[in-house]
This record gives sequence, structure tokens and C-alpha cells, in this order.
Amino acid sequence: MGKKVAHRTNAEIGKIETKKFPDGEIYIRILSDIKGKECAVIQSTKSNDDLVKLILLLDLLRDLKASKVYTVVPYLGYARQDKRFEEGEALSAKTIVKILDEFSDSLITVNCHFLKRGGECEFHGIKMGNLDAFPLLAGYFRDKLEEPMVIAPDKGSLEYAQNAAEIIGCDFDFLEKERISGEEVRIEEKDLHIKDKDILILDDMISTGATIIEAAKFLYTRGVKSVNVGCVHGVFSKGIEKVRSSVDNLICTDTIERGISKVTVSGLIADKLMSMI
Amino acid sequence: MGKKVAHRTNAEIGKIETKKFPDGEIYIRILSDIKGKECAVIQSTKSNDDLVKLILLLDLLRDLKASKVYTVVPYLGYARQDKRFEEGEALSAKTIVKILDEFSDSLITVNCHFLKRGGECEFHGIKMGNLDAFPLLAGYFRDKLEEPMVIAPDKGSLEYAQNAAEIIGCDFDFLEKERISGEEVRIEEKDLHIKDKDILILDDMISTGATIIEAAKFLYTRGVKSVNVGCVHGVFSKGIEKVRSSVDNLICTDTIERGISKVTVSGLIADKLMSMI
Repeated sequence: MGKKVAHRTNAEIGKIETKKFPDGEIYIRILSDIKGKECAVIQSTKSNDDLVKLILLLDLLRDLKASKVYTVVPYLGYARQDKRFEEGEALSAKTIVKILDEFSDSLITVNCHFLKRGGECEFHGIKMGNLDAFPLLAGYFRDKLEEPMVIAPDKGSLEYAQNAAEIIGCDFDFLEKERISGEEVRIEEKDLHIKDKDILILDDMISTGATIIEAAKFLYTRGVKSVNVGCVHGVFSKGIEKVRSSVDNLICTDTIERGISKVTVSGLIADKLMSMI
Repeated sequence: MGKKVAHRTNAEIGKIETKKFPDGEIYIRILSDIKGKECAVIQSTKSNDDLVKLILLLDLLRDLKASKVYTVVPYLGYARQDKRFEEGEALSAKTIVKILDEFSDSLITVNCHFLKRGGECEFHGIKMGNLDAFPLLAGYFRDKLEEPMVIAPDKGSLEYAQNAAEIIGCDFDFLEKERISGEEVRIEEKDLHIKDKDILILDDMISTGATIIEAAKFLYTRGVKSVNVGCVHGVFSKGIEKVRSSVDNLICTDTIERGISKVTVSGLIADKLMSMI
């Protein structure tokens, strides 16, 4: 991802040495001369190791006198903990964003669900850029489906589905999802005109995949021709295989690098960086 | 540790719920009412998971309006990366301390090697308390050795050895350690009057254990009666067994909880907290 963005922005690729000590601590050394340079760091935070590594790197860039530090976190971990659902819960997303912001001149992410879609946003007083990869996902499927129809996995994603349907030039609708418990979901009965359609489901993030699996089961009982799924963030905390085998086609972007990362967000990131420099 | 400190300071024990999501993210919820209360958090950071958990908890305490947040990090991870040995290296210790300090009213640790021993210190402009567990280790061995003599594993630890020797009432000396490469060390030849002695080696931290293993080999060739080792932080990144089997007696404190944690620092921490409240 860094190479692709560097190529497109005509930027130098900084050299970094990282390793892990036997006790699990992360070691970072910047080998390039970055003094006085505008630096962009691109690092998703899909684990606490990633997060600590990113923070150490950002503080190091400032120590070594980078003139600007643009922090790009394509997949921002802890994004689900953005609200206090029960009294006393940690607003972990706010804590993480606050720390990253303190070490950055600009903070940019991709399809973060608690930010306004595709623009400049504010979260607990912190300004962030939120890039939108949904049009790229829709574009990927545009010429691949014979009888396309976009279905949002729940009402909350209806806007994305509508937008994708416009790009593809097809109809759209949504499912009524009910969350039974933590990971268990149910799709409610609903009248849909989807027989023989090549269904496209787009989602910002697939975590366990429970929603997609239930949605696909429901759609097949209604006689659809195929179920095609695209998500921005392929977290797949229980592995990809169970999700993939439950649909006809499953892809994600490279905000988290997977074998099924068929769409790259590097162009989005490069364009954003170019607009800021 | 928290319970011991709470008991000694007559403090309430706060209830916390923590869990890990399937993708490795940490969830924290404080169940006790902490509004307006002075809160002490005791958490060693021996992994990045520990570190992230501590940061989330500290920010949450402030969100929930604790009147004061005292952060006690008995074992402070990343402490070895306190200087730039090569150009471009991260000062990770500084980054971590800076973040913890921003979320705390007071920051306290135990035998952190880059801080002045046993007192109020400053590190990159950040005030920290550094408690000293060496006297406790010396006290543990005081009545257990027949012919005691304290040996510092290197010249840098001579002051600790001298202090321990005073507590025990015995002689002391030091070894000349040479670091060959990252983990490999060598003990240089030196004239020592240690025959038939019960040697006590005290160290702030045992990481891989290479130094202790080499020191013990050297001492046994000089006809010592026994080699006894006490350290504050039992990191043991390659396991305890190889280190333990190379000496007669090996113990550590509970800054990191181990089966051989025979000395508790809870009294030190409790006394420090009592002095601040």
C-alpha cells in the first residue's frame, strides 16, 4: 500500500527497520533522512501491536523533525467502541483517536462508521478525514453482474446501497436485521422482488461474518441467482472461509490485506494526500 | 496486587469488567461508581495488550470523573529503549511515559533503570516516582545465607550491591561483564575472594537471563558454596527454567507475577499512595 501511494504521489519511500524483542516489545528505527520532510504514515491498526507500533513511529517522526506528519489509518481498530452502550464502558475509539491525533498534523481513515461519510469530520473535537471506498466496490462489480440488484444488509446501510445502485445503474432494497445477541443475528421476513437477481451486498466491515451468512441464507431461499459481497474492511475475526463458502463471490479492499483484496484504496489515499500537500 | 494495596491503604477495590473481542480488541467497563474519587490503577505493561488496556482504563477513569488518577506501573515495559543507541531509533520509553503521563495525575513505577533510584525523578520533562524494591530483596535473603556475600552482575549495579550488603551485613564486590552481541555476554577474569561463600546476585531485571547464567558459571568455577539470585522484574522472555536450573535459588518480586515471586512490592506502593493522598 505504501509503495502504491508513493508511486501515485511521486513521493520517496522512507526506509524503516522494525523488529520484535523476545519479550514482545517493538523496536523501530527510521533509516531515511526525514528532517524537514512532509511524511505520511500508512498503517491499519488491526491489533494492539499495530497500534503501539504506529504510535511509536509517529512520535519518532516528530523527534526526527519531520515538517508534517499525515497519519493514514485505512482500518481504524476500536471503531466499534465509539458510544457508551452501558454505563461505565470505555469510549475506546475516542481514546485511540485522541492519541493518534496528538502525534499527527492530520488524521485520515477510510469508511469509519462513526464519521460522516467521505469528508472532513469531527469526533470528540478531533478533525479527521474519512475516505469513501464504497464507489470503488460498486465499480468493481459494475460489469460483473448480469441482473444486478443492490441489497443493504440493514436499514442503516441503505444510503450506501442506493449510491452503489446509482453507480451500477440498478435497483436497490434493504434487509431487516435483528441482532439477537452479541454475534447472533436474524433476518426478518420481508417482501422483496429479487428472484433471479445477481444480488450485491456492500458493507463497511465484515467482522465475524454472521450478518452476511444469515443474509445469504435468506436471499437464496428467495430464489436469487447469485449473492455477491463486497466490504471495505475484511476483519474476518473467525476466518474468511466460512463466510466465503456461504456466498458466490466475496471481496474486500486492502485496508486490511487479504487474499480477496481485489480493490485497492491506495488511489483514494494518494489523491487525499495530494490535496493536502 | 491491587487487593493487597487496597487492604493496606484501607481503600475500596473498584470493580472492572474486561474481555477480548474475537478480533483481539480489548473491552473495558468500570462497574463501580468512581465519580469524585481518588483512583489508583496498578498495572504492569509487559505486553502491548497490557499497555493498550491501561491507556483505555486511564482515559475512562477521567471520563467518569475520578477526582485524581494515580497510575502505578510496577513493571514499565519499553524501559530499555530510553536512549538512541543508533541514529533514527525510537525513544519508545519516552513515548510510552508521555502517553501514560497525559492520562494521569501521578505516575509511579518500581526500579526503572533510567530513573534515579528510589525517589522523585524527571524523564523528558515528566515527573515520575521510582520506588526501590532492592532493600526488600536483600531483606528476603538476610537470614537465609550462612556465608553471605553480595556480587553485582556488572559495575553499573555496584551501588545496589553495596546497599544490599549493608542491609545483610556482609562484604560485596562486582563482576566485569562484557556484552558480546545482543544477548550474548561474557564475564571477564577477575580476582575475587569468594571461595565457600553464599553469593547473592541482585539485578533490577532478568530478561533472557544470559547475564545470570554466565555469572553463575563463572562463580561456581571459583568454588562458591551457592549462587542465590533475586531480581525485581522477572521478565524471563525465554522462560524461567533455564535460568533457575543454573543457580541454587532464584526469586523475583511481583511486579510481574511469577511462581517465584517471593517478595511483594505492594507495601512499597501502598506507602507511596498513602503519602500522596
